[in-house]
Amino acid sequence: MDDKFMLMIPGPTPVPESVLLAQAQHLIGHRSGEFSQIMAEVSDGLKWLHQTKNDVLMLTASGTGAMEAGIINVLSVGDRVLVGSNGKFGQRWVDVCEAFGLKTEVISSEWGKALNPDDFKVALEADTEKSIKAVIITHSETSTGVLNDLQTIAGYVHAHGEALILVDAVTSLGACSVPIDEWGLDVVASGSQKGYMVPPGLGFVTMGDRAWQAYETSNIPKFYLDLGPYRKSGAKNTTPFTPPVSLFFAIQVALKMMQEEGLDNIFARHARLQQATRAAMKALNLPLFAADEVASPAVTAVMPQTVEAEKIRSTMRKDFDIALAGGQDHLKGQIFRMGHLGFVGDRDILTAIASLEATLAKLGANGFSPGAGLAAAQQVLSA
Amino acid sequence: MDDKFMLMIPGPTPVPESVLLAQAQHLIGHRSGEFSQIMAEVSDGLKWLHQTKNDVLMLTASGTGAMEAGIINVLSVGDRVLVGSNGKFGQRWVDVCEAFGLKTEVISSEWGKALNPDDFKVALEADTEKSIKAVIITHSETSTGVLNDLQTIAGYVHAHGEALILVDAVTSLGACSVPIDEWGLDVVASGSQKGYMVPPGLGFVTMGDRAWQAYETSNIPKFYLDLGPYRKSGAKNTTPFTPPVSLFFAIQVALKMMQEEGLDNIFARHARLQQATRAAMKALNLPLFAADEVASPAVTAVMPQTVEAEKIRSTMRKDFDIALAGGQDHLKGQIFRMGHLGFVGDRDILTAIASLEATLAKLGANGFSPGAGLAAAQQVLSA
Repeated sequence: MDDKFMLMIPGPTPVPESVLLAQAQHLIGHRSGEFSQIMAEVSDGLKWLHQTKNDVLMLTASGTGAMEAGIINVLSVGDRVLVGSNGKFGQRWVDVCEAFGLKTEVISSEWGKALNPDDFKVALEADTEKSIKAVIITHSETSTGVLNDLQTIAGYVHAHGEALILVDAVTSLGACSVPIDEWGLDVVASGSQKGYMVPPGLGFVTMGDRAWQAYETSNIPKFYLDLGPYRKSGAKNTTPFTPPVSLFFAIQVALKMMQEEGLDNIFARHARLQQATRAAMKALNLPLFAADEVASPAVTAVMPQTVEAEKIRSTMRKDFDIALAGGQDHLKGQIFRMGHLGFVGDRDILTAIASLEATLAKLGANGFSPGAGLAAAQQVLSA
Repeated sequence: MDDKFMLMIPGPTPVPESVLLAQAQHLIGHRSGEFSQIMAEVSDGLKWLHQTKNDVLMLTASGTGAMEAGIINVLSVGDRVLVGSNGKFGQRWVDVCEAFGLKTEVISSEWGKALNPDDFKVALEADTEKSIKAVIITHSETSTGVLNDLQTIAGYVHAHGEALILVDAVTSLGACSVPIDEWGLDVVASGSQKGYMVPPGLGFVTMGDRAWQAYETSNIPKFYLDLGPYRKSGAKNTTPFTPPVSLFFAIQVALKMMQEEGLDNIFARHARLQQATRAAMKALNLPLFAADEVASPAVTAVMPQTVEAEKIRSTMRKDFDIALAGGQDHLKGQIFRMGHLGFVGDRDILTAIASLEATLAKLGANGFSPGAGLAAAQQVLSA
């Protein structure tokens, strides 16, 4: 049966009907008062979601473009930076830093493990000359389903006193609390196709006062991703270059839905879905790739032993029209990843687990009792 | 009356109902076979529209991002470039070149006049040391409604033998013929919200063999806008970073519509609409800002004398729900611009001219006979 598709990947995430349809409105001019009204409302909503008084700048770009903008707007060629790398996206920020001539030191952990905050503490404390200009962290590592301990690492960065903390919050914003002002996060980047419940195409980056100070002396060449003009235009609720108008229609609706649900409820829902998913996987004897203590609220990675991950994915897709994500780079074929981020509810988890059980049975997986996963998930969801 | 809005600006342009609704489809994963099929079809359509065998790379970016990518991927710091500037967008490429440390020489004309190809000929012929690495031209200058003589300038660039020609074709592609392979255009950039009949958010850039050779030695730092990974991923019908999936749904439909109409018919339609618009303005004694010989097929700029341009715009908006564009920078308040680009037909021109006549009458404009503009437009359209 066609056209009964269910998206359970960590982005693009499912988009509510009202948000999908908002995109289908006839376009308006982006230099019009109507557009500025929408932008003002979206801007307020983004500040609420980011728990910040800083402006949240909106770029026509993917999350990578937004994160690159954050990096190249506050640093200068030759600056010493510490980059946390424990997955594909952490590694991407290493690559960005190297592409722009930063003196890049990598603090890594094995994929599937969290970054060790102590590694940052040691490096920052050893830097008595205060030569470290920035620490760059991926909060939720989408490739492995690991949530790094951003708050603790941010604390060590503040103790250092000079370095900025730059955060990829692409799959954490809107899934768990990222209190930007409270934690003193200088630069935070994200993308519309994740917790925002909006199609991809809009990137967000917010910078605090210390970041804007650093911007003044940043000498990395830039134009399209120069955040100064975005800030200046943003103050007048307009954009320096043509914005993706239909995605603004979409995010306006999505942010209203989020505000109606409320931040605490959104975060509690993601925590519940994550716990239900993990409980089900355990009950099905499917090894979780990340430990409970460091599990992402957005995505759960599973490393099956008795059946191939890719066979699970293809059967889920073929028999039940459910898309799961696969492993990336060296994890290709080793894991599958189930997204539970954005517009995902309890029923979706039950549906996905029920279909997963049927898939395991069809593939002749060993060591699981049909119904055990569902029972475990139900128990979490009803608790 | 609300919600009976008509967009007559040079971008975003009106979007067909079927294209608007295509965006409202549920999302799919961008690493799926389904997405790759769409991307393959879109890629073929783009090559057809660009009249080229080169790959047309697709970026999550506005047209400015695409044009910047074209510039920074084929040039190196300190390279000598000639940039044509006769409007806001030509000036923007000057700014981009300067931001990236290029040795930028500006060949300018007054806003509203075309660039003089002889100026390029003289500069290129004088360069016996072949130090000029690129000539950068805005084909259709959206801010003034002037079409620069790209073919002639490209000929002089080829006679030089070393320099590349880089083209902003943002409001010419899909409005008039831009035969990339025939004219030997090395880099051509455009954006989805213009002739493509698609909302903004997708940028396009195509590079020929000489451009890819220059790419190999380009030393301007880049990552998000590094076109190498787009080319490599594109060969497998995928993208290096998350693409704007809903806009891919949209452009798939729009390109099919364009292919059904046919290139020659599309170009003939734009020529007809442009001529009808200009004939009407002349009949209404409204001075055209650009001369007939250099008029853009995408947008007509008008410099009214007896009534204020901004009053015409606000009355058109208020009484007839038609959006016209205003002047930019020093032309603010001096001109209005009527777009006739993309999903615009004969009826739209008649509607806009009829409303413009009523607006002029209401504002007490002198020297025009009601009905004269419509009669002139009708004559062109029925010829």
